[in-house]
Amino acid sequence: MERIILDMDNVIAEINPQYVVYFKQVYGEELKLEELVEHQKNGTFPDYSMLHRLLELPKFFRTLPVMKDAKEVVKELNEKYELFIVSAAMEYPLALNEKLDWLEEHFPFIQTKQIAFTGSKKFVCGDIMIDDKVSNLDHFNGRKILFTHPNNLKYTSPQYTRANNWHEIAKILL
Amino acid sequence: MERIILDMDNVIAEINPQYVVYFKQVYGEELKLEELVEHQKNGTFPDYSMLHRLLELPKFFRTLPVMKDAKEVVKELNEKYELFIVSAAMEYPLALNEKLDWLEEHFPFIQTKQIAFTGSKKFVCGDIMIDDKVSNLDHFNGRKILFTHPNNLKYTSPQYTRANNWHEIAKILL
Repeated sequence: MERIILDMDNVIAEINPQYVVYFKQVYGEELKLEELVEHQKNGTFPDYSMLHRLLELPKFFRTLPVMKDAKEVVKELNEKYELFIVSAAMEYPLALNEKLDWLEEHFPFIQTKQIAFTGSKKFVCGDIMIDDKVSNLDHFNGRKILFTHPNNLKYTSPQYTRANNWHEIAKILL
Repeated sequence: MERIILDMDNVIAEINPQYVVYFKQVYGEELKLEELVEHQKNGTFPDYSMLHRLLELPKFFRTLPVMKDAKEVVKELNEKYELFIVSAAMEYPLALNEKLDWLEEHFPFIQTKQIAFTGSKKFVCGDIMIDDKVSNLDHFNGRKILFTHPNNLKYTSPQYTRANNWHEIAKILL
């Protein structure tokens, strides 16, 4: 059985819409989703630390929306592959338990044995990695699937298979 | 730089003396350390679930004693190797943050990037694994160092290098 290493943020959980909600709550100003995406595409967001601070707030990770079609496809992958969810979570200590609870709510078929929170993904090995971060894929020794995010559109290396959504992951892996 | 995958419980943190303390607190009865060790050696502890329940209690992991000489040797290993602390922690959700805080207190030279909490260690790769659990070492593709614990005395395979204490780890790796 081939082993899949699956990322959480921006892959099965959507971060951008949550930025919009928390930005309004914390700074009292509207951040339009399309504007944020445009900034991410061009690397022009004025002060990224304003967004990073939001990641430290209670419930940020607990109430993230599930990425469209992720539930259904991950459920099928879980039957056909040896699946591990590996999420970089050490920088935000609140995130640890919130992510665990989030997975239990939305992906109840994933056992705790299949979950890992790491500071880095350098020591992770498997056959297929699905991640939105090129820096994680670069350390990986297997097949690399780059899940599209506005931040990674500039990467076009043949090293990565790009998937724009979960429908495309299903086409590649199922 | 060779990569070391280092376990926490029973390797850099001592569990048995903490069992003794919490056993007294929770059940009101004395559990003698030597008795516990004897039971672990022989696999004869009457009801292991009584011990496992203690692992769910607040502060259990936060206040564990540091294994003798671990601090000094790990500090030196950290300079000579690419070191990751990988601890199975998913079954005890309180443990996640307690372990993170414990590491910060006793091993402040370990960066969060070097820490991982996992449900399983099957997908972990590196050159050297130090662990007290044969089941973790068995999945590993590199050199296997079995850190002695009364539970693992029965394993004598040449597959593992046995280390009885941190002084012996230093002799092997430094």
